[in-house]
Amino acid sequence: MENFTYHNPTRIHFGRGQIEKISCEIPAGARVLLLAGGGSIKKNGVYDQVKKALGARVTHEFFGVEANPDFDTLMQAVALARREKSDWVLAVGGGSVLDGAKLVAAAVPHEGDAWQIPATHGGAITAPPLPIGAVLTLPATGSEANGNAVISRRAIKEKLAFYHPLVYPRFSILDPETTFSLPERQVANGIGDAFCHVIEQYLTFPAAAEIQDRFAESILKVLIDEGPKTLASPHDYDARANLIWAATWALNGAIGVGVPQDWATHTIGHELTALHGIDHARTLAIVLPGLMRVQRETKRGKLVQYAARVWDLHEGSEDERIDAAIESTRAFYESLGIRTRLSDYKIKADETAVEVARRLAARGETAIGERGDITPARIEEILLLAA
Amino acid sequence: MENFTYHNPTRIHFGRGQIEKISCEIPAGARVLLLAGGGSIKKNGVYDQVKKALGARVTHEFFGVEANPDFDTLMQAVALARREKSDWVLAVGGGSVLDGAKLVAAAVPHEGDAWQIPATHGGAITAPPLPIGAVLTLPATGSEANGNAVISRRAIKEKLAFYHPLVYPRFSILDPETTFSLPERQVANGIGDAFCHVIEQYLTFPAAAEIQDRFAESILKVLIDEGPKTLASPHDYDARANLIWAATWALNGAIGVGVPQDWATHTIGHELTALHGIDHARTLAIVLPGLMRVQRETKRGKLVQYAARVWDLHEGSEDERIDAAIESTRAFYESLGIRTRLSDYKIKADETAVEVARRLAARGETAIGERGDITPARIEEILLLAA
Repeated sequence: MENFTYHNPTRIHFGRGQIEKISCEIPAGARVLLLAGGGSIKKNGVYDQVKKALGARVTHEFFGVEANPDFDTLMQAVALARREKSDWVLAVGGGSVLDGAKLVAAAVPHEGDAWQIPATHGGAITAPPLPIGAVLTLPATGSEANGNAVISRRAIKEKLAFYHPLVYPRFSILDPETTFSLPERQVANGIGDAFCHVIEQYLTFPAAAEIQDRFAESILKVLIDEGPKTLASPHDYDARANLIWAATWALNGAIGVGVPQDWATHTIGHELTALHGIDHARTLAIVLPGLMRVQRETKRGKLVQYAARVWDLHEGSEDERIDAAIESTRAFYESLGIRTRLSDYKIKADETAVEVARRLAARGETAIGERGDITPARIEEILLLAA
Repeated sequence: MENFTYHNPTRIHFGRGQIEKISCEIPAGARVLLLAGGGSIKKNGVYDQVKKALGARVTHEFFGVEANPDFDTLMQAVALARREKSDWVLAVGGGSVLDGAKLVAAAVPHEGDAWQIPATHGGAITAPPLPIGAVLTLPATGSEANGNAVISRRAIKEKLAFYHPLVYPRFSILDPETTFSLPERQVANGIGDAFCHVIEQYLTFPAAAEIQDRFAESILKVLIDEGPKTLASPHDYDARANLIWAATWALNGAIGVGVPQDWATHTIGHELTALHGIDHARTLAIVLPGLMRVQRETKRGKLVQYAARVWDLHEGSEDERIDAAIESTRAFYESLGIRTRLSDYKIKADETAVEVARRLAARGETAIGERGDITPARIEEILLLAA
């Protein structure tokens, strides 16, 4: 096991009716910037619960944070927060709203160009960000319990991630009932995204980190068991609760400490979103099976373990078990309604493979993955396998 | 899944050489009370590393915190801290030193009788405790990452637990190498204690909490796999690291949220320590197999799951699998060198069974366990099975 530091300061309030805990978490004298997305929270009752919990606190609302939150949109929220002297940010929504809240919270006290925050991956944050609270309405990204955010800037075709220990939400509220009304497609994407978050931290090379490995396998198995259940029965409280709690643990830091990490599937997937507008989770489903095939030698030890412990594959040769595990992974995504081939999206694999490899090479991403051995040539190979 | 709040604010520095992180964690101007046990840290190099990391900080040392830390001893440390105006407590040792540090940190600013802190299970804490840091040298209790402490007061034959959210250590340092020199008996006790911590939160009735269940099973499997390895090869870094990290997760709150909990094994075990001076972990090994037998109907669902997922028992009838799982549990403790029968300790089961039931009844503990159905009669039955 490698040395590590683990710290997750977010307080989670989980369950039915927990939105009322906002009234204990945010001081009565706070000036709150409420950040939200497109307005669905006004239809499903979340907004009313939030307003009731906020009570007489001075609150200013900013609706309109889009999927893949845009820097320019968020700067309007920053201007509002500065004008109204907001001293708390309350994010109500999914991962995009939560990620956006992290940028807003850091940008409000930031002197100079706030784009430097994502441009330096968080290094430019020097003034303490505003405290953040969150009401999560879409399980997927883990943003409710980590210090990560991904910010897009459409005006200059950029999409950058940043991290800072001071942008973990102070508290996050996870009420499964608030997610019952989500469209099936978004729930499926959330399951697929969380699954890949675990894989990126787990499917590398053995590092003698038994708790991290078994926790990762636990989360994968819960997603495999509960994902189809919650898609089939969106109002099954327990299935949805298990999905939400699994998605939080998929990216709250616990399984990633002391072990190598990959993230090449995300890096390649981001390009497919940028080039073709494919949903983030769907890009991961396209890339992952091919990446497992191309990296089968460097990932062999973990692939065998994954086959046995996650998919209960114990028969046949090592290579047969690995092949079966890769096909099980693809079949799992397909079972969620997430197509795994570029042709499913009417995309020509050969052209896209070349273009993605070129774009990543141009920005210096020529040696990705846990061993830095995923070169542009391998990226092409991976995407050709997804034809 | 039941509603819950989860929050664990402790920052963990894990690995070789991490003691130096003290210099980043405790402010340079702090006045530190260093709390320790019997002096083994001066033999194994831990003390020297701690002193080097503390550098020029004003430090006062209090050695002599005993196993099952005693209130009267700790009050001497409180007097020292008050006299020297300490504003940080640094615990260097195992669970007893860490538990003691929590009482000291809460007692220093407490007005009135500090015994009220354990006597009210923490409710009497109103003044913010001093911040606590910890260097853990014995994996077992999980005290390095929770807000729990158990305090004895030999003068009045009491032993009481308290909890408070403000006595979680701010940081804890877990360096596996500092534990290599531990006596085998203490390491075995640590494994056995951590195992029972998991069981008390897991082996109840099904609550549709899949992450919590699978994480619990993960920790049990790691203890089963790594425990014997680290006893056989105390200098095997990875085996010891995995044990330590497993013991932390066994009682840091993660597996206990949203589920019923038992703790009857601990309640009964404490009496065996009080009456016969048996090591805490050994009392658990005596009580647990009998408790599983007596409670087999109310715990049936989870016993079957435990048999399958932890012990890979899939053959035979449900009752045969349950029996095999209970015997596997007993055999596991025995394999650690922890004897599981009262006769191994030269104790007459019939007399002790009556006496323990009487003592617990006298203090109102007449309906313990996750369903409150462990009565004095059942306690007798449990202990007679350990004859």
